Amino acid sequence: MCVSTLFAQSVTLTEGEVEEIIAVDNQGNLFGASLAQAEKELAPYLESGLDVPTPKDLAGGYTHTQHKVNYFTMQRAGLLFQITGKEAYAELIKTTLEKYLKQYPTWGRHPSEKSYARGKIFWQCLNDANWLVYTSQAYGSIYNWLSEKERKQFNEKLFVPMANFLSIETPHFFNRLHNHSTWANAGVGMIGLVMQNEGLIQKALYGLPLNTKTATDNDGGSIQKEGQTKAGFLAQIDHSFSPDGYYTEGPYYQRYAMYPFLIFALSLEHQKKDLKIFEYRDGVLLKAIDALLQQTDDDGEFFPLNDAQKGMSYYSRELQLSLALGYYYGNQDEGLLSLIQKQSRVPLTYSGWKSAIDLAKGIGKKFEKRSIYLSDGPKGEKGGIGVLRSKEHELIMKFTQHGMGHGHFDRLSYSLNYDGHEILQDYGAARYVNIHQKDGGGYLRENKTWAKQTIAHNTVVIDGQSQFDGKVKVADRIAPDEFVFSAENQKVQVVSAKENNAYEGVELFRTLALITDESFENPFVIDLYNVKLSEEAEIELPYHYHGQFMSSSIDLTRNQTLSPLGEEDGYQHLWKVADGEADQDYEQINWFDKTRFYTLNVASNKGDQLVMARLGANDPNFNLRNDPCFILKRKGQKGNNLMASVLETHGSYSTVTEASRNSYGNINSVTISFHTDEYSAISFTNKQDEEWTFIISTVDKSSQTTHEITIEDRQYKWGGPFALFRNDLKQ
Amino acid sequence: MCVSTLFAQSVTLTEGEVEEIIAVDNQGNLFGASLAQAEKELAPYLESGLDVPTPKDLAGGYTHTQHKVNYFTMQRAGLLFQITGKEAYAELIKTTLEKYLKQYPTWGRHPSEKSYARGKIFWQCLNDANWLVYTSQAYGSIYNWLSEKERKQFNEKLFVPMANFLSIETPHFFNRLHNHSTWANAGVGMIGLVMQNEGLIQKALYGLPLNTKTATDNDGGSIQKEGQTKAGFLAQIDHSFSPDGYYTEGPYYQRYAMYPFLIFALSLEHQKKDLKIFEYRDGVLLKAIDALLQQTDDDGEFFPLNDAQKGMSYYSRELQLSLALGYYYGNQDEGLLSLIQKQSRVPLTYSGWKSAIDLAKGIGKKFEKRSIYLSDGPKGEKGGIGVLRSKEHELIMKFTQHGMGHGHFDRLSYSLNYDGHEILQDYGAARYVNIHQKDGGGYLRENKTWAKQTIAHNTVVIDGQSQFDGKVKVADRIAPDEFVFSAENQKVQVVSAKENNAYEGVELFRTLALITDESFENPFVIDLYNVKLSEEAEIELPYHYHGQFMSSSIDLTRNQTLSPLGEEDGYQHLWKVADGEADQDYEQINWFDKTRFYTLNVASNKGDQLVMARLGANDPNFNLRNDPCFILKRKGQKGNNLMASVLETHGSYSTVTEASRNSYGNINSVTISFHTDEYSAISFTNKQDEEWTFIISTVDKSSQTTHEITIEDRQYKWGGPFALFRNDLKQ
Ligand SMILES: [Ca+2]
Ligand SMILES: [Ca+2]
Ligand SMILES: [Ca+2]
Ligand SMILES: [Mg+2]
Ligand SMILES: [Mg+2]
Ligand SMILES: [Mg+2]
Ligand SMILES: [Mg+2]
Repeated sequence: MCVSTLFAQSVTLTEGEVEEIIAVDNQGNLFGASLAQAEKELAPYLESGLDVPTPKDLAGGYTHTQHKVNYFTMQRAGLLFQITGKEAYAELIKTTLEKYLKQYPTWGRHPSEKSYARGKIFWQCLNDANWLVYTSQAYGSIYNWLSEKERKQFNEKLFVPMANFLSIETPHFFNRLHNHSTWANAGVGMIGLVMQNEGLIQKALYGLPLNTKTATDNDGGSIQKEGQTKAGFLAQIDHSFSPDGYYTEGPYYQRYAMYPFLIFALSLEHQKKDLKIFEYRDGVLLKAIDALLQQTDDDGEFFPLNDAQKGMSYYSRELQLSLALGYYYGNQDEGLLSLIQKQSRVPLTYSGWKSAIDLAKGIGKKFEKRSIYLSDGPKGEKGGIGVLRSKEHELIMKFTQHGMGHGHFDRLSYSLNYDGHEILQDYGAARYVNIHQKDGGGYLRENKTWAKQTIAHNTVVIDGQSQFDGKVKVADRIAPDEFVFSAENQKVQVVSAKENNAYEGVELFRTLALITDESFENPFVIDLYNVKLSEEAEIELPYHYHGQFMSSSIDLTRNQTLSPLGEEDGYQHLWKVADGEADQDYEQINWFDKTRFYTLNVASNKGDQLVMARLGANDPNFNLRNDPCFILKRKGQKGNNLMASVLETHGSYSTVTEASRNSYGNINSVTISFHTDEYSAISFTNKQDEEWTFIISTVDKSSQTTHEITIEDRQYKWGGPFALFRNDLKQ
Repeated sequence: MCVSTLFAQSVTLTEGEVEEIIAVDNQGNLFGASLAQAEKELAPYLESGLDVPTPKDLAGGYTHTQHKVNYFTMQRAGLLFQITGKEAYAELIKTTLEKYLKQYPTWGRHPSEKSYARGKIFWQCLNDANWLVYTSQAYGSIYNWLSEKERKQFNEKLFVPMANFLSIETPHFFNRLHNHSTWANAGVGMIGLVMQNEGLIQKALYGLPLNTKTATDNDGGSIQKEGQTKAGFLAQIDHSFSPDGYYTEGPYYQRYAMYPFLIFALSLEHQKKDLKIFEYRDGVLLKAIDALLQQTDDDGEFFPLNDAQKGMSYYSRELQLSLALGYYYGNQDEGLLSLIQKQSRVPLTYSGWKSAIDLAKGIGKKFEKRSIYLSDGPKGEKGGIGVLRSKEHELIMKFTQHGMGHGHFDRLSYSLNYDGHEILQDYGAARYVNIHQKDGGGYLRENKTWAKQTIAHNTVVIDGQSQFDGKVKVADRIAPDEFVFSAENQKVQVVSAKENNAYEGVELFRTLALITDESFENPFVIDLYNVKLSEEAEIELPYHYHGQFMSSSIDLTRNQTLSPLGEEDGYQHLWKVADGEADQDYEQINWFDKTRFYTLNVASNKGDQLVMARLGANDPNFNLRNDPCFILKRKGQKGNNLMASVLETHGSYSTVTEASRNSYGNINSVTISFHTDEYSAISFTNKQDEEWTFIISTVDKSSQTTHEITIEDRQYKWGGPFALFRNDLKQ
């Protein structure tokens, strides 16, 4: 066989790419190191071969784990064969595939009936699809190395049946718009590309004909979307990402979901270049990589939005392909190279090699994070998240659509980071992934009863109930509305959104501003949270802070015995530790964490309540972290109720020098200075007697409009939806 | 004046030392950098001069702070004058001293009556003594630069009166054996050395004649020790340090207390070399430096014994002199150089310069921590602490004498560190040093009601009462007894001690072994804690763990409302979260922290209770950290009650890979296999069916004795107090 066609059917590495790679001495660069590492990891299997047991077990069991080992190993063996030319790798794939060839036709659906879409090799089709995505790469790597007879056998008796099984024999799985089904689309498409089977490729890209069956999945979710008119891989891209690349389930799940999108895209780029897949929808796959990385804190940890395990970061192995493809097929952002360097490993793809070569040249700089608005929804019409960044501060406001089964009832909530750690946290998921003691590592009961509930988030709760009464299907139907996102002026960055459906008769409108001003040592947060009520209701605004409570201008009475704060909607998990009542129209709450002090300066109503609480009640299995929070409570009146505050980061403390600096904040008054149906304004002063007023139009977000209002004989005039005035200076 | 005598009266830097230092170009070494830093810091004062206000304020107030600034500034100005030759520094000292000269004679005792020993410049003599220790250095630096007339004035009208004031006019302060008084001895001695006033020097070294007055200090402590026969600096050294260099108040206070000892010692070394002060008591001052550094964790943080703020470390500025003197006057331990490097600054002494020179030569290696026994008491006869180290593990058992006012009722407690963080903690002090919100930064009420109590430590509590019923004077009278400390065999390290006075009719005897064995992935801890009772009593053994409780073989019932565990002795601060009862003779408690899992394997009695608790009850001002603990409870019978357990560190978890390894321990049974008045033995097996037996003689600690006992038909024969047998192998 002619060498120039040996790898013609490889989907991961083309002939020409391999030639370029091996023309260079890669010892000493990251590609060479990654190659050596892979060779070392595969060496034992070259000796032992790979076992192909009859499917029987669930996740964690032997047969499950072994089939997983098989596809990971074969995929890497294929790349090693292509790059090193050692036929032992090809032999390993071939002999393993022969075992599958012999047995697969005899296997029915997996004995476990747990899944709505049972696989053959695994208990669910998802894992069978994973197998095919990886194994099609291995098969492509040795396709032309096999004899025509061998290929014919594998094609007809193993791969076409498997592709048919995952598609036409399981249409409710294949046609679903869901990240699990993306794996099936990708697997069927990739094996189609290897075998040059245009029928399979078309099914993969465009799905099967849609029918109207209304099947449901394991969790009772409906299989076919209301109004769904398309299926297949392209429809998955359309559906999964917003035009900004935001993935509707949030960054923790996106990290995992990116692989089938990107590896099939790479395969299409290699074998169907005219599709221009990386330019599809204005390059949304590459935008998604950037969006994912922008949703990380200073340590690279993903914002723990929705169901997310905290601590997952861009150091995850799963990011390797995203980083390399993002660098090579994107605009060669040198910031990505620094992240690749941190990974210390590149994928054995051309993009991985190119990254390694450029890194070896010394190219690379710090990955730049920026303030960013990421819309949600296929057309960007379903809310989004706003990330405001200034110096060490990072504010994340969430007003996305619900995000399906992994979504939380967290609309208009925000979290705040300082130097890579949380000041105000989102709890994340109540789960210890893969830790057996904790319900086998799956989602814990408390994920639903606590982590998803509104009170677990830094947003308003009405009458002690979660948004949408905790009903996913209702929440899924309608999203909040972005009002303003503005980060051009680094000193006054604003994100603002409305939510009118979470509670009947309640209109929620929150504006958060991250202000950087030389009169303050750190950026600070203005929060204007208006709650418009059609009748009286209780308004509660929790603050899930970290650290040690220091002091409050509200006198607190501590409880001698502790009881839960409530009975449902998450309140049953909070111990009521202490409470007190505001007796002034300005109150402060002050705490310390790590090296900094924090003060929440509140424009209070006399009679507002401050409740100190701690998580951990009704938690029989010790599944929850016992984190603290405080809750501001107000008896809401019919009409507008504006919760207004300024949150300062200030001072410092070191246990080594024992020096304490500015342990109290610099603000000494906060007032709601203007509040109508059209405008909200907050004024605040500092200890140097300087005064500021922040105003936002709550109805007109046009940047063209000029506004003019008078507050206490002073004229305020500005253009665009909002402005910050320093009152002692001319604006 | 002849240059060779210009610095003849300097106590900090001699003539010859300065010559050596300035003969070298120090730019580029740490001395040069420290010099430049000091020059920069003093530059503003060369412009402005130093204010000498009439004393009025307490700590934190203007006059207090300014006089403190004055002595720190003058001291450094003196050294800068000696090293750089710039007379502006000498002028600054002289003009400042002239201000004092004019005013000091007019000042009576400070207006505040808070102190039992009121100062003149400050509210307490301690601060006046600080002033003198620093200022005598400054005065020595310019002594021969001044005219004879100037010297005479300063000597007669300022310094002799001040030395007399601190000694003969305040004998109950000067003669006291206490770290505060050490400052007075040092100050009087150092100014005596400068002025060549032998009378003052003798008073400083040997104290004033003792009288029998029984004055008390601010806290009601008696001024003169029972049986005290000596006073002065040498008596302070005798009294403060054990022969091993352990400082009786613990490392946190030692860090602060070392300065007057070392700076007066350095002065004596310069001006009274024949005293051979660094060889005094077998070189105890240098031993103390090593002992202090050995009492730090992997991050350099001091073990938080007694009243100690956590996080204080060898990065503290106060360690600079200790490190440099320890290096130069000790055995030039290169490990100290690496700590000096971490400080990034050296004192402007000859030892600081020598350290910088050697560092610049590239000398230096990791500071070696080792297992170490530090006896307490002037003769080493009053208990001590045992530190066992193996790989990442560090076990600290405490059985020192009480340690006066800052001591805790913590006898036979232990704490355990892994890789620089606490697995089992000592709470430290309930205090936020210098943070105004927290009672002005002083000791909090909860320091006494919680932090000092026995239940706040990992040691047995009898009938819910603290040791010595929480009475300091009684506790101060008698110390625990060391039984065994053995660390020669790295694989089986043992520390063991007895305490028979803390509770009436109760003999406590605890043996802790840190075992390193290839069958276990990490070192583990065997704990044999025998409680011999003269009548039935309740035994409680708390474990102050960090992290997330995972699971227990004891079924736990969580409380629906929380009440405090008790009413006094610290129990009033613990919420009772859950409890359960042992129904087997082997139980496990499993938790997770950071990256590792921990399992306590307990030889239980049926009916033993496990109580899960959390700190925070009866804490009206939120002064306590809300840390968790669990408590093993047993109804103790008359006679011996052996609490036996094995604590494992195992497995790993990463939130990035989400891989969980060995989340359960490797041990699967623990039994008390032999227990008489003469021997205690524990046997345990692991999941590979290997078995071990650890035996200790509880009466004979001689290493010469050969023991022989039979347990279940198996003969055990060994030499010395203890042995670990692997039962399936011949020992
Ligand atoms: Ca972080
Ligand atoms: Ca108040
Ligand atoms: Ca530490
Ligand atoms: Mg959440
Ligand atoms: Mg940072
Ligand atoms: Mg303590
Ligand atoms: Mg370490």
